[in-house]
Amino acid sequence: MTTAKRDTYTPETLLSVAVQVFIERGYDGTSMEHLSKAAGISKSSIYHHVAGKEELLRRAVSRALDGLFGILGEEPARVGRAVERLEYVVRRMVEVLITELPYVTLLLRVRGNTDTERWALERRRDFDHRVAELLRAAAADGDVRGDVEVRLATRLVFGMINSMVEWYRPDGRGVSEREAADAVVQLVFSGLRKQH
Amino acid sequence: MTTAKRDTYTPETLLSVAVQVFIERGYDGTSMEHLSKAAGISKSSIYHHVAGKEELLRRAVSRALDGLFGILGEEPARVGRAVERLEYVVRRMVEVLITELPYVTLLLRVRGNTDTERWALERRRDFDHRVAELLRAAAADGDVRGDVEVRLATRLVFGMINSMVEWYRPDGRGVSEREAADAVVQLVFSGLRKQH
Repeated sequence: MTTAKRDTYTPETLLSVAVQVFIERGYDGTSMEHLSKAAGISKSSIYHHVAGKEELLRRAVSRALDGLFGILGEEPARVGRAVERLEYVVRRMVEVLITELPYVTLLLRVRGNTDTERWALERRRDFDHRVAELLRAAAADGDVRGDVEVRLATRLVFGMINSMVEWYRPDGRGVSEREAADAVVQLVFSGLRKQH
Repeated sequence: MTTAKRDTYTPETLLSVAVQVFIERGYDGTSMEHLSKAAGISKSSIYHHVAGKEELLRRAVSRALDGLFGILGEEPARVGRAVERLEYVVRRMVEVLITELPYVTLLLRVRGNTDTERWALERRRDFDHRVAELLRAAAADGDVRGDVEVRLATRLVFGMINSMVEWYRPDGRGVSEREAADAVVQLVFSGLRKQH
């Protein structure tokens, strides 16, 4: 078994094991020994793939960040009225969170003790600002309510979406990706959008 | 200084120090030694007040749970149309979260490894169910939208409120309790309430 695993090991499977261990033990509490045991390969085999655990963290949070920033490059996020672009981004954020659940979970737990963690936090803030800008533009268009301050509203909306990592399980028995995305969009937008 | 501290130490101040340490280190990662250092009193002085760290945890999460369950006993949460009672409960949840910030933060981080943690998780679930029941009643009255499933909506609303522990700081420079409560109620209810 161990030999078979060793033969088929790829940087991709190593990353997915590492993310689980980081989530369970916390990044600080994870040693190369823990990673080696969980992956069922030797430490030297891990070092064959990556320079160390910080590289695994960087790859893992990059996957989540690439998913999120990728949304902003998609046409419906770039073209059209700000409120429609915002709605698209919120829906896609839920979808990316579900598709990349362990990676986004890890990203949201990053606290900033290493360069990689500080870099990840900064990228998260950049993303938050980009979404806040969209909300501000939608408010300027008169399409969303003006009585909730933009930064506060952004935080609350991100809070609602990000809290899904605490309970969402993609096991096919619970809430589907579509139901979750619809529910978030309904709750957020019938709240944010002015009723005409 | 240490002597002065020792003289004025009360179970209340010990609890508030313990909660900070539990939040920083995690409950599992906190030893009586850590608590003794943080409080500036000897371990035997701590044992004079409590049987051990689990009793401190129980007192701390009880304070948060008493705050939350207390809401349900207040008259506006008991009398009137379900949707109005729900709105009152949501507003008061934000207020209790802010007033008891460290205690609610700790409650939300409890994971369930000890009897006290399992008990706290069960009490949290009870509270969630009570709020979900209110939402169900409001839906039955036709006062909230029917296109988002009750359990999912409850989770998302709790997610929005609970996420405040990640960023809310009661330092007087940021968002006031009133602004936060207003914003949550606005976002949640213009989303949940049917537009006539």
